[in-house]
Amino acid sequence: MNRIISLFALAAALLAGPALAQDATEAVAELVASPDPAAHTVWILNTLLFLIGGFLVMWMAAGFAMLEAGLVRSKNVAMQCTKNVALFSIAAVGYYLVGYNLMYPLGNWSIGTDETGGYLGAFGIAVLEAVGIGADGADDIEYASTGSDFFFQLMFCATTASIVSGTLAERIKLWPFLIFTVVLVTLIYPIQASWKWGGGFLDSQFGFLDFAGSTVVHSVGGWAALAGAIILGPRLGKYAADGSVKPMPGSNLPLATLGTFILWLGWFGFNGGSQLAMGSIGDAADVSRIFANTNTAAAGGALGALILTQVVYGKIDLTMVLNGALAGLVSITAEPLTPSLGMATLIGAVGGAIVVFAVPFLDKLKIDDVVGAIPVHLFCGIWGTLAVVLTNSDATLYGQLVSIVVVAVFVLVASGLVWLILNVAMGLRVTKDAEMEGLDSAELGMEAYPEFGKGSQFA
Amino acid sequence: MNRIISLFALAAALLAGPALAQDATEAVAELVASPDPAAHTVWILNTLLFLIGGFLVMWMAAGFAMLEAGLVRSKNVAMQCTKNVALFSIAAVGYYLVGYNLMYPLGNWSIGTDETGGYLGAFGIAVLEAVGIGADGADDIEYASTGSDFFFQLMFCATTASIVSGTLAERIKLWPFLIFTVVLVTLIYPIQASWKWGGGFLDSQFGFLDFAGSTVVHSVGGWAALAGAIILGPRLGKYAADGSVKPMPGSNLPLATLGTFILWLGWFGFNGGSQLAMGSIGDAADVSRIFANTNTAAAGGALGALILTQVVYGKIDLTMVLNGALAGLVSITAEPLTPSLGMATLIGAVGGAIVVFAVPFLDKLKIDDVVGAIPVHLFCGIWGTLAVVLTNSDATLYGQLVSIVVVAVFVLVASGLVWLILNVAMGLRVTKDAEMEGLDSAELGMEAYPEFGKGSQFA
Amino acid sequence: MNRIISLFALAAALLAGPALAQDATEAVAELVASPDPAAHTVWILNTLLFLIGGFLVMWMAAGFAMLEAGLVRSKNVAMQCTKNVALFSIAAVGYYLVGYNLMYPLGNWSIGTDETGGYLGAFGIAVLEAVGIGADGADDIEYASTGSDFFFQLMFCATTASIVSGTLAERIKLWPFLIFTVVLVTLIYPIQASWKWGGGFLDSQFGFLDFAGSTVVHSVGGWAALAGAIILGPRLGKYAADGSVKPMPGSNLPLATLGTFILWLGWFGFNGGSQLAMGSIGDAADVSRIFANTNTAAAGGALGALILTQVVYGKIDLTMVLNGALAGLVSITAEPLTPSLGMATLIGAVGGAIVVFAVPFLDKLKIDDVVGAIPVHLFCGIWGTLAVVLTNSDATLYGQLVSIVVVAVFVLVASGLVWLILNVAMGLRVTKDAEMEGLDSAELGMEAYPEFGKGSQFA
Repeated sequence: MNRIISLFALAAALLAGPALAQDATEAVAELVASPDPAAHTVWILNTLLFLIGGFLVMWMAAGFAMLEAGLVRSKNVAMQCTKNVALFSIAAVGYYLVGYNLMYPLGNWSIGTDETGGYLGAFGIAVLEAVGIGADGADDIEYASTGSDFFFQLMFCATTASIVSGTLAERIKLWPFLIFTVVLVTLIYPIQASWKWGGGFLDSQFGFLDFAGSTVVHSVGGWAALAGAIILGPRLGKYAADGSVKPMPGSNLPLATLGTFILWLGWFGFNGGSQLAMGSIGDAADVSRIFANTNTAAAGGALGALILTQVVYGKIDLTMVLNGALAGLVSITAEPLTPSLGMATLIGAVGGAIVVFAVPFLDKLKIDDVVGAIPVHLFCGIWGTLAVVLTNSDATLYGQLVSIVVVAVFVLVASGLVWLILNVAMGLRVTKDAEMEGLDSAELGMEAYPEFGKGSQFA
Repeated sequence: MNRIISLFALAAALLAGPALAQDATEAVAELVASPDPAAHTVWILNTLLFLIGGFLVMWMAAGFAMLEAGLVRSKNVAMQCTKNVALFSIAAVGYYLVGYNLMYPLGNWSIGTDETGGYLGAFGIAVLEAVGIGADGADDIEYASTGSDFFFQLMFCATTASIVSGTLAERIKLWPFLIFTVVLVTLIYPIQASWKWGGGFLDSQFGFLDFAGSTVVHSVGGWAALAGAIILGPRLGKYAADGSVKPMPGSNLPLATLGTFILWLGWFGFNGGSQLAMGSIGDAADVSRIFANTNTAAAGGALGALILTQVVYGKIDLTMVLNGALAGLVSITAEPLTPSLGMATLIGAVGGAIVVFAVPFLDKLKIDDVVGAIPVHLFCGIWGTLAVVLTNSDATLYGQLVSIVVVAVFVLVASGLVWLILNVAMGLRVTKDAEMEGLDSAELGMEAYPEFGKGSQFA
Repeated sequence: MNRIISLFALAAALLAGPALAQDATEAVAELVASPDPAAHTVWILNTLLFLIGGFLVMWMAAGFAMLEAGLVRSKNVAMQCTKNVALFSIAAVGYYLVGYNLMYPLGNWSIGTDETGGYLGAFGIAVLEAVGIGADGADDIEYASTGSDFFFQLMFCATTASIVSGTLAERIKLWPFLIFTVVLVTLIYPIQASWKWGGGFLDSQFGFLDFAGSTVVHSVGGWAALAGAIILGPRLGKYAADGSVKPMPGSNLPLATLGTFILWLGWFGFNGGSQLAMGSIGDAADVSRIFANTNTAAAGGALGALILTQVVYGKIDLTMVLNGALAGLVSITAEPLTPSLGMATLIGAVGGAIVVFAVPFLDKLKIDDVVGAIPVHLFCGIWGTLAVVLTNSDATLYGQLVSIVVVAVFVLVASGLVWLILNVAMGLRVTKDAEMEGLDSAELGMEAYPEFGKGSQFA
């Protein structure tokens, strides 16, 4: 910008003649003094950030798939893989057809306005910029390519859907789950996301801050999962009449570990890309802060869970450590920029601690969450959203709380309704025989590991 | 470019004196009006695109390895891993020694010319730019670093080799397979690739369009695999005398799922990097379109296969869904830029449908393709190449068809000859005992999973 | 820089009037002739290199975890995963609290000076640049964002710690291992790393060259592992009284293969990012050379090990091929820039050969290295450090040798002391019963694969 102004000053001086040569010199000096990237370079670097961030978040879909495949019993692994590939695909198509414009109406609200508060976005398919555009073909020359923005934002929608599948594993039928996913990615997610990231009423009226989606993504997935888990009920035999809880350990812990590392890696794109710009010193330095803070929060969460399980239970639990790392990541997601490294570590560590206590707490409530997604994504999503006020003075506890509650009510009611309708219309749950046999064999007619031993005491 | 012209105009005006100050102002205004990246920035961004694209495509080698390791029986898993690491390494060295210059003769054709049509490229090892070059040391200052181009292009060669190993799994000896790979990566792949991407006769005489290689990479791997599968014959017991087909299910489906997600991720580099430039608004926006289209085509393929297996077979088959996603990716590869998101989804969905019908079709022909690589890479490679005419008016059905046939004949004949020579010279196939025992134990003397149950009814 | 000078010349000419118009024209021509990126673009591109390089090296943590999980027996897999997640988390926090400033004192040595030789860096936590800085808020406007540098350098520290866990697997207690990791990442690694990369005495007084850390990272991990392996002793039953060596094969070779591919991918960030800059043609071309050389060295290592195991043992060993690839990567790490592609392949191939002979050599010494980390990281780390003199005339054999010895003595003594103290204070080794039962069950109370067959002849 300074560059452009300087050049105009220089041109004016040249026109006015020698008398204004002094002005010209000053203009040149100013141009030299602000050696910012050329305007189009900024746009290209922003676009690049979305592309890199987008493929990293896309990779999180594999992380969820591996985490869940590792944490369910072997008789349900192929089904869990099927659900994860299918839900990601549904998100890709659904977000294109409906979600993108519903979430980003760019002022064209169906209900509400930018000023008074937007409530329902625009309807229409996503349209990318044409092939081989010049600067005048760019939808927003101050921002980034629409294609890159669509690609990046789509992945957040898909992440929300990924969260739900883990909680409801091992007992939900495939097709009702997929139909729920359709509603989630085309309506529930984009509508509530528009309230904050589309500039809607939570953003404009309540000053809600949620940098990369502790609430907008993670708690939404968590609320949808919670509604489903309550309506679906626990797995057969999980909670005995005498109050005891039967452990049903995951079948492949290195796979769950891999899934966690994938999610950890993808989260750099999730939080870093949410800076939405990388074409200035300030933005590039901010993205760097976010990378460093995201990493240390995950570390804090893992160490928090590790130490706490040692202290409380006397033995370390790998799945708790993995969920602790994820808890740290969710916790820092609402504000990965403003905390110091030390503060980010602490915010993550509190997330790790929340998971250690929340997992048995859910079991007490007889809410059966197969992979611990509700503690990680919902509870830590709330914690992370509240923690914004600790380091960002622009956030208010009021605005954060109202937004948490508004999103909670909307998602719980909407997804609860969908689950109930699906339950009546087609039944959410497989038969008892199918559940005992395993969904792979009963629903898909295949086995994930046909040659390995199975039917152990845990099966 | 405009920037440079403007500065020269400004200089001329200054020389000519005040009378031309008006011109100078216009020159400055022009400079301001096209704030493109500085010339070297363009070169650096192009180089960066190749490096990012290259490491993403390199990652696809891991995807093929996991996909194949998951889809073979456990007694052949270690061998499949060995082949995949070895073939990638052979591609790296062979492409350096022979392939790169044979594929990109830069006009120095051994047979033919750029104008009349190139048929055989140049011989010689790849030589990178020197250490610490300045602008005058760059091989092509309008393009990108040679090192980055070599790195990126090498990965396409390796991908072609990866496709072959899956089809021929569980019965081919290690060394003949590796020797075939040497010929494929040093001669067969680069020669035919030069016809299109090196500016050879399919490009200059037939206007063949293949953006990222539905034909040049995927169908080439497919034809080589098909020739091998026919000569090698099916696995023992696969096709019974009564015409029935014995299922030999993969030993580790979450690993196959992981492989699919890896390939999906890597494909952003495969197609996106094939834009070959990212230093202008047009190029960056095009790369973004490609990312978005690539993703939605994969989703279309997965959903196409999912719905079709439900409708046709009454049960969803995870391996079909995985291959459906890959089919969508192969299908969009010949033209990932010009389609709209909706069209890309459809092109991918057709690919998914092709796979669902092609897999049993091959079984009817008693062509035993262990992982389904021929339906995915060959059939969808052809489909994708033809589909270019649907959205890109520069493509002709004639040019596409001729090119498909020319490549088919060349690769089938060349690889068929190599397979036959290897069969006579050293035998392609392991002994019956070795095949029953498994290649891991018989050829490598080790087991992939020594502690897990084995020898099930499927082994 | 030329750009800025040209603009000042232009300004001066304008001030002086028409007589100097000729000068102005020359200034403009000069400006046109060096169209380098704007100053801030360079900084942003450098920052971007660190962010991309950093997330790729972070991904190596997953690679080590999968490699090790695949190479230990199934009864120790969950423990190996736990250690890998925990050590990475400890590195993240420890490097923030102590390591970063100890390694990069920026002249503020606690012992020594930049001129006479630095021996002990500065103490203090890492502090990142503030949020939303401008150019004057950057810590070093000629370099890159501090946050990106911290993120990148942290990953090297974590890599060092990852190397140790594989060697000592299957018999070391969790907590002593984690406490050793704390000392390694806060003191041992950063102190010796400061001697080279912090500008300390090995750098300033001995002209030591180690581009990306064959010595500074890999051999340091190797020496620490060697000290631990000697003090800890071999696994029960590994070395029989009659001198025979009992094979204890890894439980999941595709997982080990995946780990190798992950490391291979991550190494592009490891070596490429170590160029430390990407904002000029020279730097971008160098990063490209490094990517290409890193890849071909890995290929050379894999092929070297493949051919050699065939020739020497008559059968190919997958784990040798995997370690061969890693050996090639370690070997090229000290100098990935100056070698030609051919030379890089040879340097990698020698690394692959070293591993083939070093693994049985260690067994003869009854040093039990579960995953082969000492041959790969220590022996090839030394080889790679010496090989610098083959292609880089700035390196001296004397300087390289002195540095190898200095680092060896320091790390062996320091880590040996820590291991001995831990052994006395809390015991390094699990009980015999726990070792036989497996660390997963005995220490964690869980199983990695609870449903798969176990207790085979190898367990």
